[in-house]
Amino acid sequence: MEIRKKRRICLVVAYDGTNYQGWQIQQNGNTIEAELNRALSALTKEPIEVSGASRTDSGVHARCNYAVFDTAVRMPGDKFSYALNQRLPEDIRVRKSYEVSPDWHPRKCSSKKTYEYRIFNDEFPDPLCRLYTHFTYTKLDTDRMNTAAGYLIGEHDFKSFCSIHTQTETTVRTITDLSVKKEGSLITIRVTGTGFLYNMVRIIAGTLIEVGNGKYPPEHIKEILQHCDRSCAGPTAPARGLTLVEYEFL
Amino acid sequence: MEIRKKRRICLVVAYDGTNYQGWQIQQNGNTIEAELNRALSALTKEPIEVSGASRTDSGVHARCNYAVFDTAVRMPGDKFSYALNQRLPEDIRVRKSYEVSPDWHPRKCSSKKTYEYRIFNDEFPDPLCRLYTHFTYTKLDTDRMNTAAGYLIGEHDFKSFCSIHTQTETTVRTITDLSVKKEGSLITIRVTGTGFLYNMVRIIAGTLIEVGNGKYPPEHIKEILQHCDRSCAGPTAPARGLTLVEYEFL
Repeated sequence: MEIRKKRRICLVVAYDGTNYQGWQIQQNGNTIEAELNRALSALTKEPIEVSGASRTDSGVHARCNYAVFDTAVRMPGDKFSYALNQRLPEDIRVRKSYEVSPDWHPRKCSSKKTYEYRIFNDEFPDPLCRLYTHFTYTKLDTDRMNTAAGYLIGEHDFKSFCSIHTQTETTVRTITDLSVKKEGSLITIRVTGTGFLYNMVRIIAGTLIEVGNGKYPPEHIKEILQHCDRSCAGPTAPARGLTLVEYEFL
Repeated sequence: MEIRKKRRICLVVAYDGTNYQGWQIQQNGNTIEAELNRALSALTKEPIEVSGASRTDSGVHARCNYAVFDTAVRMPGDKFSYALNQRLPEDIRVRKSYEVSPDWHPRKCSSKKTYEYRIFNDEFPDPLCRLYTHFTYTKLDTDRMNTAAGYLIGEHDFKSFCSIHTQTETTVRTITDLSVKKEGSLITIRVTGTGFLYNMVRIIAGTLIEVGNGKYPPEHIKEILQHCDRSCAGPTAPARGLTLVEYEFL
């Protein structure tokens, strides 16, 4: 029997996280990883397990998460996307697929990720935005939020912006860009960095909201960073407002 | 016993039509009208039946549909919106409520309605737009679509753009504005008129798509209008791409 050499395929995946318990396989509840494994195993007739780049939380969305898997199937790398999309639910789409070297893994690469946190700030929520924005009727001042955002750019110990359940060697991270934009009722917090702690973007969003609504002065961000204490920062903003929008390998 | 005089209240309603069998009450399946009646009857303890301005089809969305109802409840007109939103599902929101004169009805007024038909035109669908756009991977030429759109502006017999099931006195209608815009992968057909026939906007969208993909030359629109025959126009584009975005009383 011929033992065919395994190849490694990389997938670029977009999804609406509304109906999923996040990326990673769970005992209870459906996940993006489980859906990809199911579709790939059906396609290849092999027991495929993908390995993802970013393990997004329950309810979080993505325009470009990455995953890799190994297969002996001899389909051209770029054809997997078409074949998979036929087998995936409508809220998950493989935007691209291609062969990579057998030892390449997105989590072993230096990378820059960009997240957007979107807030719908009006008197009433818009039903057509509800799944992809966090709603608040308290008027937010985006000039104040932008001033506050400026203090977070650069290399800092983000311990105050990290969920207390986390176990990680260091809580120092680098944010390369962070801006707050307003278009009509929609406020978008866009943040780029080389690495993020658990719940970091949602805690940054929750804290910037407290600056925007007047609870904190923008300068208070400096004190929050200094205290290295999660309880000093604002609340963790809800998952539905968060989308992983860009992933760049350096 | 005091018989309290009934007042008429007008509602401005936005909804995500994905999970509804349209506006109008049906024997089977949930509708926007049924949800409003349920919430209003619970609020007022009266058997309320709203009367809507535009009876949108199954799966069609709205940013501003209108409805009126009569009640003896002495709540200030503008407070109904807040009370109703507490009782409505998240995909329906009353954006505004106010008292009108007891004989006012939106369907008795001259009005201008604006619809948007949104198309996601890329290699793969975007899961985060899927509920509010129609997806097509065939590259559409929006310059050609705009040329074609120009022939539809004005007063015409739109019989070719009307579902054959309809019963209506005249099929002459006036389109005051019709444009096709492209932003990235998103194409938006925006049409304003003083009245629309059954499925008219979706047939216009389906026909403009056939112009955009090269099946019809833009000038073919003139012939389609002249023939007054539904079978000459393009297919009825899917409901999910359609949103009633503006309603103006003249």
